[in-house]
Amino acid sequence: MDDKIKKQVLRRLDYGLYIATAASGQHTVATTVTWVSQVSFEPPLIMVAMRNEGHTLEVCRKAGAFALHVIGEHQKDMAAAFFKAPVVEGNTLSGYVFEPGDITRAPILEDPPAWIEAMVEDSFPVGDHTIIIGRVVGAGLRDPDVSPLTLSDTSWHYGG
Amino acid sequence: MDDKIKKQVLRRLDYGLYIATAASGQHTVATTVTWVSQVSFEPPLIMVAMRNEGHTLEVCRKAGAFALHVIGEHQKDMAAAFFKAPVVEGNTLSGYVFEPGDITRAPILEDPPAWIEAMVEDSFPVGDHTIIIGRVVGAGLRDPDVSPLTLSDTSWHYGG
Repeated sequence: MDDKIKKQVLRRLDYGLYIATAASGQHTVATTVTWVSQVSFEPPLIMVAMRNEGHTLEVCRKAGAFALHVIGEHQKDMAAAFFKAPVVEGNTLSGYVFEPGDITRAPILEDPPAWIEAMVEDSFPVGDHTIIIGRVVGAGLRDPDVSPLTLSDTSWHYGG
Repeated sequence: MDDKIKKQVLRRLDYGLYIATAASGQHTVATTVTWVSQVSFEPPLIMVAMRNEGHTLEVCRKAGAFALHVIGEHQKDMAAAFFKAPVVEGNTLSGYVFEPGDITRAPILEDPPAWIEAMVEDSFPVGDHTIIIGRVVGAGLRDPDVSPLTLSDTSWHYGG
């Protein structure tokens, strides 16, 4: 296999940009993720593939729950803000206002147009990432007219 | 949870359109799929969530391998053609020419701009679908200039 071709092809898979958040004890995490998909209709399940060594995976597991936010096409700055660990100050994460989710207590950010609350149902280690399976237990839609930001709208890559 | 809101939000997740193929003995399958993501860099792994009752899942498992094709933005007709089981005639699947993949023997369609060959590494049942994990063992790129077809380019939905 030609590694350059492999990378080029894998980068042609299509992804949205999302912010995953979770809170457990003193630990609050928020990270921009792209390897996300619904994986079942009934029950409604989603998956997020998270880096094995990442703090986000650990806190999601401890919390047994997470939230996933859709990022709007005009919110590229917010996506970039959560490439690194958030600064938690009062009810803000790196300056973005949140409140704890009704069901999961995961931070629900105020700015994204839509979000999901999910309970961790299972997890599967796969190579350098772990697939977290979340059962959708809550959902909110603030702005039905916003189109989601996709990786191809940006110059960023996560794949290859 | 408001089921209508849940559906609206889940339909805001972003997906590409792909054709998964596999061949085992007398059985050849090809189906349009959307719940697809890379899930590991090293080793390079991808996941496809397939309906539990589908013939595609069964044949992928028996074959221990599958191919995944990126559909070009101009190839909506091809995506629609593989919503139903393919008609296999000679070296065509529902009229689209293929040849067996070098490594996986899965049908490689001639028209898509890019494809991946993958060996089934693992599978996890999740609700009404099963996540198939494939190790990327081959990749081909026929047309680097074609943009991939995404679900939001169409009026179709697979999510909610």
